[in-house]
Amino acid sequence: MEGVMDKFVSIHLNRTSDIPLYIQIYNGMVQLIESGVITCGQQLPPIRRMASFFDVNTVTIVNAYKKLQADGYAKSKIGSGTYVSFIGKKTHLGEFDVPIENMISSDSAAESVYVKKDGFIKFDFAGASISPKYFPVKDFKEVINEVLDRDGGYALEYQESSGYQPLRESIRDFMKAQHNLDIPLEEIQIVSGAQQGIDIVAKAFLNYKDVVYVEAPTYPGAVNAFKSRNARIVEINMQEDGVDLDDLKKNIMSNPPRLFYTMPVFQNPTGYSYSIEKKKELIALSKEYDFYIIEDDHISDLYYDEKPSALKALDDSDKVFYIKSFSKLFLPGLRIAFLWVPRRHFDKIALAKYSSDISTSGLSQRILDLFLRKSLWAEHVSHLQKIFYKKWQETVKSLEKYMPSDVSYFYPKGGHFFWINLPQGIYSTNLYYEALKNGVSIMPGELFFIEQRPSEGFRLSIAQISEWDIEEGIALLAESIQSLIDNPHKVFQGPNDRPLL
Amino acid sequence: MEGVMDKFVSIHLNRTSDIPLYIQIYNGMVQLIESGVITCGQQLPPIRRMASFFDVNTVTIVNAYKKLQADGYAKSKIGSGTYVSFIGKKTHLGEFDVPIENMISSDSAAESVYVKKDGFIKFDFAGASISPKYFPVKDFKEVINEVLDRDGGYALEYQESSGYQPLRESIRDFMKAQHNLDIPLEEIQIVSGAQQGIDIVAKAFLNYKDVVYVEAPTYPGAVNAFKSRNARIVEINMQEDGVDLDDLKKNIMSNPPRLFYTMPVFQNPTGYSYSIEKKKELIALSKEYDFYIIEDDHISDLYYDEKPSALKALDDSDKVFYIKSFSKLFLPGLRIAFLWVPRRHFDKIALAKYSSDISTSGLSQRILDLFLRKSLWAEHVSHLQKIFYKKWQETVKSLEKYMPSDVSYFYPKGGHFFWINLPQGIYSTNLYYEALKNGVSIMPGELFFIEQRPSEGFRLSIAQISEWDIEEGIALLAESIQSLIDNPHKVFQGPNDRPLL
Repeated sequence: MEGVMDKFVSIHLNRTSDIPLYIQIYNGMVQLIESGVITCGQQLPPIRRMASFFDVNTVTIVNAYKKLQADGYAKSKIGSGTYVSFIGKKTHLGEFDVPIENMISSDSAAESVYVKKDGFIKFDFAGASISPKYFPVKDFKEVINEVLDRDGGYALEYQESSGYQPLRESIRDFMKAQHNLDIPLEEIQIVSGAQQGIDIVAKAFLNYKDVVYVEAPTYPGAVNAFKSRNARIVEINMQEDGVDLDDLKKNIMSNPPRLFYTMPVFQNPTGYSYSIEKKKELIALSKEYDFYIIEDDHISDLYYDEKPSALKALDDSDKVFYIKSFSKLFLPGLRIAFLWVPRRHFDKIALAKYSSDISTSGLSQRILDLFLRKSLWAEHVSHLQKIFYKKWQETVKSLEKYMPSDVSYFYPKGGHFFWINLPQGIYSTNLYYEALKNGVSIMPGELFFIEQRPSEGFRLSIAQISEWDIEEGIALLAESIQSLIDNPHKVFQGPNDRPLL
Repeated sequence: MEGVMDKFVSIHLNRTSDIPLYIQIYNGMVQLIESGVITCGQQLPPIRRMASFFDVNTVTIVNAYKKLQADGYAKSKIGSGTYVSFIGKKTHLGEFDVPIENMISSDSAAESVYVKKDGFIKFDFAGASISPKYFPVKDFKEVINEVLDRDGGYALEYQESSGYQPLRESIRDFMKAQHNLDIPLEEIQIVSGAQQGIDIVAKAFLNYKDVVYVEAPTYPGAVNAFKSRNARIVEINMQEDGVDLDDLKKNIMSNPPRLFYTMPVFQNPTGYSYSIEKKKELIALSKEYDFYIIEDDHISDLYYDEKPSALKALDDSDKVFYIKSFSKLFLPGLRIAFLWVPRRHFDKIALAKYSSDISTSGLSQRILDLFLRKSLWAEHVSHLQKIFYKKWQETVKSLEKYMPSDVSYFYPKGGHFFWINLPQGIYSTNLYYEALKNGVSIMPGELFFIEQRPSEGFRLSIAQISEWDIEEGIALLAESIQSLIDNPHKVFQGPNDRPLL
């Protein structure tokens, strides 16, 4: 609960005011709830704890909580406490820019910190970032102290814009040893997370009204970076073995792209991976029609079958910008990824990086460097592979056991996303609300399409949930699906028929 | 010397190769020098140390160093060692994009780490970031361990995009207590350093071909962010009491701006500050002609006279985006600043931040938060004020004592930059090379103008130099200036007459 209380330090009580203390606390909490700092489904701290935190009588807190309930901000659950029941700014589903906020919230620590097992959201299949319980905090502390003892104040200085040289070297060595990729040192640009990598390539290469192709569905953060460059965005259908080549070629004829954004391995949100044939074809097309490719390798380390290979490995004409995130599996708070930049484009990218934030935190870079050098990264990944493979097996088993027969799904060969398709006409945004009633959260498919069009598909993520909660969560989810199928009046008809919040 | 050796880990010896080891080491070092990883003026490590590092005979290192000297990459100084004498990529002065690299190198730790007091550059008046020797590493270590003990894995999770809530609160409280500014919590956006703040405002508000005004001279990093948005940039002359209003108004008539970028307090590079009248006039103009202002508060905490006040304090119509850096005085490696965003623009800025890098390192944010809460920041700033005021006095005294009479300069009321003007027709780029011969480095003025036009002005920074080195450094600099005045054939005539490197 330590972290929970952090949220409330913004509430300052004025003990000389005429406004009753319980109203002051109520007002502060309403602000936190409406702004989405505290999100729907979060359990509020126990009465006693809040009373001691604010140094007030327990009755004051009871009254504040009662008023929250009376005004529709919270619900009480017998025997287990009070929960936020108001969907604030961050969990509102609406026009395109807003669900991005939604993603932030779900992809961030915020939810996972507060959602307790006995809380409103008991089964979190929405969160995309791995639960902090898997982070090797002890190793991390040792490494950070070692860095500070070794480098002193220099660990806290500005870093070269292209990155801390020893980290670039340890990344080169790591990529050779773990992924059999030979990356020349001078082609490695350190960036502050994969999102910045995408943003920087967009900055360096997109001109006004340039066309960018993305997979459909795709990661909305990337779409946002392209939109911020005033790009025109075109969706190309995604299939289980990679992008739909017919759709791609048809579009190229009429509207050739400057850039193609892809996640060829365990795609977000589908978990699909490209076949070797499709990779080759994509590279061939990039040469023939002269466009660049951003390859976003968000989680290829987390494989359960054979080790996946990068699209970039096939790139023989400097078309691919490869981005590897170190945040997805490990320590997202460090904000580190790297860009493998074709040499001839390096200066352009370096300038775009410099104008974006000068350099990535030198301290974070030194920490990751030492992690790689001590082989702690490889150790950690192999540990996670075991944990996630078990979760994957549990998910597969539960899907087979509980899902209605006309629901279809795909088993990814790695990562933590499953893409599930409901029967035709049953939209997943409706399922989102229906499942929430059972304490189950998922990511509705519309978030992953640029026009937010209603989708039968949804993303089921096993990043946050424990192995032993999967079966129960999927059983409940299947119940919600069945209930939607059985009650056609609940069926979401389209964008004009969205349930109001 | 610990950090120095880091540079050489990229040199991998192949002991079974036909290429002699000393040539392999030589080749590796040439690459490091040419790419600017090791920069001109840096002392190379002692022979014995290199020999033990590479596990080779000392003769091997002697031969490698000799070859470096023979080929013009290094110079030996009797009694004090071997120094790099080749100006690599990062210290090359050329077209606009390149000097930015130069700034990176000078503003970064890279130089300061390696330039020893007995080295080639003995008097560093170029570096803009405060020497790491002033960083409170012990306090930092305590704070970081406290954060990790308190928050565990959650300290390493994704953060809310707008920033870690407790940090936003401690910034609000700090700005109230230290700067008497009332900043509503919901108008604070945490960013990864001031450069990102500038870039994000540009991203949110600049459209294709929009006009941006900058002060002349100005900070080139900002210019770069605007260029990356395809903005048209117009320079407005800077005067000792702020921007030249006549020049500003004249330009507004013909070519009104969308955005005006200013550093109203202790400007970089001049040290000039706006008078209250000019601040009021600028605000009035922003209302009348409907343009936005970015106020870059890079170092207002470091004042020697009265406490400066922010332009933003006068903003009564939501025109000013105020950016405060926490990197300039303290821990640049943390990469933290904040943006004070007029409420009505907050969502736009939040989205631009999200699409840039999702969120700023949660660990860095938690560290800065605890620093502010423990009042360590205020303590540190007051300590720095004392140190820098002494350096400032020493600089003023030395300028009076040594500068030729036709050199003019300005005494800033804070910060660490002095702007010095050479006699007409004596360009500071020439002085840069002349002074380097005396082991003195400065920042030539042309770097701070958008067209890189030759300038008689230059920036003298006391960020890196020790109090006791200032007098000698300025005496030597004055000698170089006198030598340029006395030898007109050395005088730089313009862009077509640049000295070749």
